[in-house]
Parts: sequence; structure tokens; C-alpha cells
Amino acid sequence: MSMNPTMTDESLFTRTADLVERALEGLLEDAQLPPNLLEATRHGVLGGGKRLRPALVILSCEACGGSAEDATHAAAALELVHCFSLVHDDLPALDNDLLRRGAPTLHVQSGEAMAILAGDLMLPLAFQALTGGGASKETASMLVGELAEGTKAMVIGQVFDTLGGMPVDLAPEDQLRLVHRNKTGALLRAACRMGAFCGNASGETLDALTAYGEAVGLMFQVVDDLLDVTQTAEHIGKATGKDEASGKLTYPGLLGVERSRQVVLDLQEQALTSLASIGDAADPLKDLCQYMAIRTK
Amino acid sequence: MSMNPTMTDESLFTRTADLVERALEGLLEDAQLPPNLLEATRHGVLGGGKRLRPALVILSCEACGGSAEDATHAAAALELVHCFSLVHDDLPALDNDLLRRGAPTLHVQSGEAMAILAGDLMLPLAFQALTGGGASKETASMLVGELAEGTKAMVIGQVFDTLGGMPVDLAPEDQLRLVHRNKTGALLRAACRMGAFCGNASGETLDALTAYGEAVGLMFQVVDDLLDVTQTAEHIGKATGKDEASGKLTYPGLLGVERSRQVVLDLQEQALTSLASIGDAADPLKDLCQYMAIRTK
Repeated sequence: MSMNPTMTDESLFTRTADLVERALEGLLEDAQLPPNLLEATRHGVLGGGKRLRPALVILSCEACGGSAEDATHAAAALELVHCFSLVHDDLPALDNDLLRRGAPTLHVQSGEAMAILAGDLMLPLAFQALTGGGASKETASMLVGELAEGTKAMVIGQVFDTLGGMPVDLAPEDQLRLVHRNKTGALLRAACRMGAFCGNASGETLDALTAYGEAVGLMFQVVDDLLDVTQTAEHIGKATGKDEASGKLTYPGLLGVERSRQVVLDLQEQALTSLASIGDAADPLKDLCQYMAIRTK
Repeated sequence: MSMNPTMTDESLFTRTADLVERALEGLLEDAQLPPNLLEATRHGVLGGGKRLRPALVILSCEACGGSAEDATHAAAALELVHCFSLVHDDLPALDNDLLRRGAPTLHVQSGEAMAILAGDLMLPLAFQALTGGGASKETASMLVGELAEGTKAMVIGQVFDTLGGMPVDLAPEDQLRLVHRNKTGALLRAACRMGAFCGNASGETLDALTAYGEAVGLMFQVVDDLLDVTQTAEHIGKATGKDEASGKLTYPGLLGVERSRQVVLDLQEQALTSLASIGDAADPLKDLCQYMAIRTK
């Protein structure tokens, strides 16, 4: 299970990121948008770095014996939903972030009205993408349901995180897990499940990939919380120290840095164990999990 | 083709509005939302008056020999998209409207962050609803594609209307038609086509309902433009005279009130002619068209 020493950050993501970037460019081109909306949407969608979520979709599909091509449209759809959430979460009325991936956020670049509308546009483009591709209507319908469920949970998580509404009788760590599971975890879980659908997974393999997605989904956010307190803004390309400044509930804030690092190790172990039944075909997902545990941006 | 004299406004819409209201309540209940998000979403979605778009979905399905139940989930999904667009279009960065259906708009009621997020939530709820119902996966997939296309066009229309981006070489009346066809017309067209899909329409009937939807879709907006200059805010439950004040391109602004009324009559004639091949089963759609031409709010 040790990480392939030649499997650098770049080689882990290059292939899937290239595939999804081309698919996203194609979707935006086919959408026949007016030039101002196209420019804003491209700013919010393209040039997005590693493309972690699409990698999860495609590698999950391949772990079931499917091909990358079987899952590329689903990967692009999921990434559109992720980009939509970033654009809207950055808005002044929400997180009011000015910097994203080292560039101005969309409302800074194109104005608030355009950022709202370009974000809105990304959702129908995402669902439309799922009805394309070579998948059967049965699979398309499952993909739509899964992406809708993940998107819904993500919005609920953002409400919890910024506006409250959580059950009051939960212990702080349970509250935190509930926020993270919805806000970040649900879409990573959906990524793995959508990949499984594209790869026509058996029930057992779908369960394995679901458990993996849940573990890495929570782990991703704990690592994110840790980076917010340990890294500089210059390094990760967006503002840091914001969680503490805003009084947000975070893992290091609640458990301290050391215990949060232990949570990461435990979740990593859970994720890797989940994949046991799949065998060698899941090796790239194991590498991805190990990268996610030790990433520095 | 004359309007049934007993077919009042109320009896035209009561049955379909009741069906869709119950379906929407069910969808919101099943979504298991936190109480603050549920309250905001209910404010933005429920108690919505006539429910014109759902009526078009259901009556189109019935015109093809389908039942109201076959189309109710699609009608609710389409209405969720309409409600999403109202909530976001009302935002301060867009139309900055304070009043809608005689009540405070959602951002006035629940704050801007919640209005953005509750609007965002309505889209995945809509697409999720399409994968439910008793329709085949084939039909579900067609419904998803159609709703996505209508939603996309609606966003493009709002960009044209508020942020520009239209082809510069178009004559003013063509520009206006392009805005309206996208901003309002596309979703009304989608309503008729989605009803046709739910009713397993033949190709000929789908074409007829598409042509009807396009005609009533444009007519609806011309009537809306007319109401903005001829009615009081008290009567129609939202601010009037705004189009002129904001310098927006409108039919009465461009053609005058009388010629705009003639455009309504011409579109009404087109809509009714489109339905000729369907026969008596399309009578309720004819009544609806005549109501839409003479509505006063």
C-alpha cells in the first residue's frame, strides 16, 4: 500500500485533469453563450489545477473495469458543480473572498451580478452533460440523482457553516463532522459513486467506493482545516487564517493540530481498508488517498 | 375556439395549481433540510398563485392523452426552476426587488446569503424530482435535458437583459425578441415539451406543442411589458414602471402600447393555430392561451 515513489503529484493528476479540462472546454463551447457570460464562466471553470473530484470519478470508474472515456462526462459535470459552489461561496454576502487559486474571484473579476448568473449557469450545464456521453439512460438517470443529492448536501453544508441551523443537541465534534460531511464530503462521495455507476460497478464494489469516498471526503476537509492554520496564503493561493478569525468551528480549533493529524491518519486507514475487496485495480485510488493525506496545498 | 364562458381564471388553474403545490410541499419535506433553509425555501417556493408553468406541463401532457399524475413531478421540477430564477433575479446585485407576489422578496425576508443558497438549492431539487415519478429512464433523461436547456436559456436571457452581451448587429426589435425568447420564453417552451414527453407525444404532437409554447412564451412577456406600463403596483403585487425607469428595452417602449397589443393578438393566433392537429384534447391549452392574452396581473 505504500505510495508509488514515481507517482508524483503531477503524474497522479495530469492525465485525468487534461481529460476533464478538454471536456469542460467542449461543454462551454457547445453552450453557445454570449461573450460576456462565456468569459466569466471560463474564468470560473477553466484552469482549475489538480481537478481532484474528476480524478476520483475517473479512477473509481477504472477501478470497476470501465474506461476513462466512460466517466469523463460525469467528471466534467461534477467539476462544474464544484466550480459553481466556489463562485457562489466567494460572493460578498457569503465568504467574501477576493482570491481563489491565486487569481481574483469571479465577482472581483466580472462583478457580482455576473458571478451570480455564471454560477447559476454551471448547474444546468452540469446536468445537461450527464444526459450526453455514451452512458445508458438508466445510468444517466442514476448519475442525475447522485449529482443532485451531492449538490443539495453541499448547499446544506454551506448553510450550516455560514448561517447555522444545526441540531442544537449535538456535541461540537459531531456538529463539525455534520458540517464537513455535507459541505465537502458529499460531493467527494458522489464523485466515487458516479464513477462506479459509469463503470457498471457491482453492489459490493459500489459499497466499497462509497465507503472510500466518505473517508476521503471527511479527510480532505480536516487537511484543509489544518492547512488554513499552518500554511501561508501565498503557498495555497487563497486567504489563510480566515477560519480562526471568523470563529468557525474547525478540527484544529476543536482538537488541536496534533489530534487533527491523527484523525487524518485514521481516515486514511479507513479509506484504504475500504478498497480491499477491489484489488489492484484500486491502486491509483490508494495513491490518490495518500496524496490527499499529505498534500500541502 | 372562443373561451369557455364558465372557464374563469380560478377554474382554469385550481386543479393543476393544487396538484403542483402538494408535489412541491412533498419535495421540500423529503429533502430533510435544516429548519432555517426549509423556511427560506418554503417562502421562495410555496403559495405561488396560478402556477402557470406547471399548468402548461400538465395540460400539454393531457393533450397527448397522458394523465395529470404522469406530469406532476415534471411540473413541480419546472416550477422549482422558475422560483429559483425569481429569488436570484430579485437579489440586490440584479433587479434589487423588494416585493414579489405582494410579499417581501426572499433576501428581504431571510437575508442575502440565505436567498442565494436557497435559490441554489432549488436547482438540484428540481433535477432530482425528474428522476422520481413513474416515468421511464428514457423519459427522465429527456426531461433532464429539456429542463437544463430551458434553465440555461433563462440565465442567458437574464444576462442579456441586465448585463448586455447581445449581438450588436441586430435591429432593436430582434434584440428584444432575443432577450424575451431566452429570459421567459425558453422555460414556457420547455414546459410544453416536458408535458409532451410525459404524455409520450408523437413527433407531430411534440412539434405542435413546441410551436404553441414558443408563441405563448413570447406573448407572455409582451403582456408582462404591457402590464408594467398600464397597471398599478398594488394590482399586480410587484413594482411597476421599473422597465421605463431603468431604460430597459420593452415592447411598449419600442413599438408603443397599441402595436404591442397587436403583437399579442398575432401571437395568440399563432399559438391557437399550432394546436390544430391535436383536436379537442388541446381545448384547455387554447383556454389557457386566451387567458394569457387578456390577463391583467
